[in-house]
Parts: sequence; C-alpha cells; structure tokens
Amino acid sequence: MKTLVVVSHPEINNSQTQQFLLQGAKLQDVIWHHVEGLSEIDVDKEQKLLMSADRIIFQFPLYWYAAPSGLKNWEDKVLTRNFIYGDDNENLGDKEFGIVVSTGMPLKDFQRGGTENITIDEIMAPYHAIADRAKMKILPTFKIPQFQYMDESKQMQLLIDYQRYLTQAYPDSLSNRQAWFEQEFADRIKNFDDTDCTHCDAILNTFAQRREDITQLKSTINLIKQGEDE
Amino acid sequence: MKTLVVVSHPEINNSQTQQFLLQGAKLQDVIWHHVEGLSEIDVDKEQKLLMSADRIIFQFPLYWYAAPSGLKNWEDKVLTRNFIYGDDNENLGDKEFGIVVSTGMPLKDFQRGGTENITIDEIMAPYHAIADRAKMKILPTFKIPQFQYMDESKQMQLLIDYQRYLTQAYPDSLSNRQAWFEQEFADRIKNFDDTDCTHCDAILNTFAQRREDITQLKSTINLIKQGEDE
Repeated sequence: MKTLVVVSHPEINNSQTQQFLLQGAKLQDVIWHHVEGLSEIDVDKEQKLLMSADRIIFQFPLYWYAAPSGLKNWEDKVLTRNFIYGDDNENLGDKEFGIVVSTGMPLKDFQRGGTENITIDEIMAPYHAIADRAKMKILPTFKIPQFQYMDESKQMQLLIDYQRYLTQAYPDSLSNRQAWFEQEFADRIKNFDDTDCTHCDAILNTFAQRREDITQLKSTINLIKQGEDE
Repeated sequence: MKTLVVVSHPEINNSQTQQFLLQGAKLQDVIWHHVEGLSEIDVDKEQKLLMSADRIIFQFPLYWYAAPSGLKNWEDKVLTRNFIYGDDNENLGDKEFGIVVSTGMPLKDFQRGGTENITIDEIMAPYHAIADRAKMKILPTFKIPQFQYMDESKQMQLLIDYQRYLTQAYPDSLSNRQAWFEQEFADRIKNFDDTDCTHCDAILNTFAQRREDITQLKSTINLIKQGEDE
C-alpha cells in the first residue's frame, strides 16, 4: 500500500511537530509531500502523484479552523472539478483519505460548550466533502493536541500511532494492529546485528503465539454466541 | 452603520457575479475591500479597517467547500490570535458578521442526500467559529446560487436583497425592511429632477401611510392576544 502525505505548513523547518512527524514518516511506501515547498504547482504532476497513492493524507496545523492557506491554494489549483468528479471520473475513487491535524489547544476545547465551541469533525467537514465527492473512503482524523507539552514517552506513543495511521490496514481493529506490529517488528530486526537483539526471534515467536491464542479465544466466543442464538 | 465587504476572488475582473455585486455595493458607508487586489497585507492597517466597521462581510465564490485561498492567506496574516481574543480583547466584539457566497450549483444540492451532501451552514462553520471566538453577532449567510442562469428580473431582485444584506438593520424583520425601503427611496428621489418623478412624493407618502396601517393592525392583534391571555 502506498501512502501520500500532503503536508501544509508555511514554516515547516521551525515546526517541532512537523519535524518530529517527518522522522516518523520515513517509511517504505510513504511519500512526504510538502506543498509550500513546491517551487511551482504542476497540476498534471500533482494529479498523477495523487493517483499513484492508495491512501492520501492531508497533514497540517489548525489555523483558524482550517488548514493553512498553502493547502487551499494547492487544492484550488490541483483538484480540478474534472479530476475529482467530472464526466463520472473516479480518479481517486476507493482510495483512503485521512487527515493529520495538530492543535495548540487541548481536545476538550473542541466540543459544544468548550472554548472553541466546534468539533474537529465539524472543522474537517469541507475536506471530507471533497473526499466524498471523489468517492474516497474516509478515515477517522488523527489528532495531535499540544505536541509541545508531550513528554518523551507520549511522543514515542504518538510516533507509533502516527506510523500506524500512515500504513496500517483499515479499520484500526485488533487483528489489523497485531498484523502491523508483527510485520514492523519482523522488518526491523532484519537490520539488527545478532548481538543487537539476541531475544528478537523469541519475542516475535511469543507475539505470533499470543495472536493465535487470541484468534482461538475469538472462535470460542463465537461458538458460545451461536449457542445463545439457537 | 459602516459595512466592510472583504471580497476574495482570484480573478475578480473576469467574474460576472462579483462585478455585478460591485455595482450594488456602491453605497454610502460601504467599503469594498478585495484581498487579492492588495499589493501587500499590512496587518495593522487591515485590523484598523476591521475595527472601523460595524458589519463585516466575507464575500467569495465557493471553491471546494471554502473561500479561495486568498481569503485564508489574509485570515492567517491579519487575524492574529491576540487581535481576535487574546488577553480578553474584544476588538470585534458586538460587530455583525455575514457571509455572501456564490455557488455554481443549485441550493438543493447542499443538503444531506443532495449531490454535495453537506449544508451551506456546515461549510461556513469554520468562519462562524472565528466570529464566535471574536464575540461577533452572526448574520444568516447570503447565498447566490447559479448567478449565470438568473434572468434580468431575478438579478434586480438579487441586487436589492444584496444591498439590504449590506446595510439594513438586523434582524431582517418586516419593520426593518419597511424602514430600509423608505429611507432608500427618500434618499434616491433627492437626486431626481422634478420632471423625473412627479409622483415620487405621492409614492413615498403612500408607503409611509401603509407602514402606519400595518403598525395599527399589529396593535390590534396584540390587544386581541392580550384578551385571549386574560
């Protein structure tokens, strides 16, 4: 699966959040695409880039309840009506669409009665309307509130969650999470020296065993449920 | 009452809709302010302009469920957090905020189940969130669907409705409408030669008479209602 991350930030080099995410996005089959960094917007090239991806992510800090103007400028140029839905085109149909948004305010502010008095989903509605029009599948929005206040352990958790958001199969079910962690772990230990991780294979085996245990437990639960239905 | 119309359109000279509205906005105490036409955005000057108005209108064509990027660029620069709500500032508090939006699609498309599957109010939520944060009073959005298909009589009706939106007292009640039409008519006939409109004063008198009749009818209805309550 190929993921395209369309990033918008007017001063990306000064953004701790975006620099942190950039490190996380250095994965196989993930393209980091910074719109304000483009010397010019080549519509044809951008459209081909979108079509080459299976999952398209818009990533930005929240400025006045929307993305920075750079993303809107890119949208207004690249997303021609014909490309999105004209003549029954479905250039982006069945691709997945997600949003990664960072906020300076805590999430509790984004609700009715909260300081912002509007939800994140309401704020994202215009982007989701584009995705709907293009017949894309919408992923839940990935929210990064107040990155600057996160301690190192929270940042590490964020990094993994972010990487899963970019590359893990949808939906975010237990079995998809298990498969993702197992694959990632297996891929990463390949690069280790033997001395780096003597127990790696043992961990991987235990992981696989646990996954099988859970699968068996699920089967048992299903049998019990079937019994109740009869 | 002073009205500031913050207009955003990347090619305003080629927009029939905006050129038509421009003619309508040539009223006393209405400032037409085209953001893409600014040679540079002087934040201090723009903020003072906003503060000088009693009613602030954002006016734009709908591009991908939002204003063109030019308005967002202006917002991101001019609307500093401190200006809108920092340190309990209320620079725009109690001012009125409205939106004039033109759409290429008919209004029936903007509803759940419609082609666009999103309402105009949902699309405008991010702008209204700014107005809320600034403690402004929100006016209903003025919608101009498919201007290009309007015949001359519909265009004339639009022109008057638009002028009322820019300058008529809020809310859009019968008495506020009456007062607006009477004032406008009185102002306009001042510029006529006697020969231009021999019946103008008679019309104006009839208008005033009708308004009084309605006021009396309202009093009568109120008396009846009071009788019912007792």
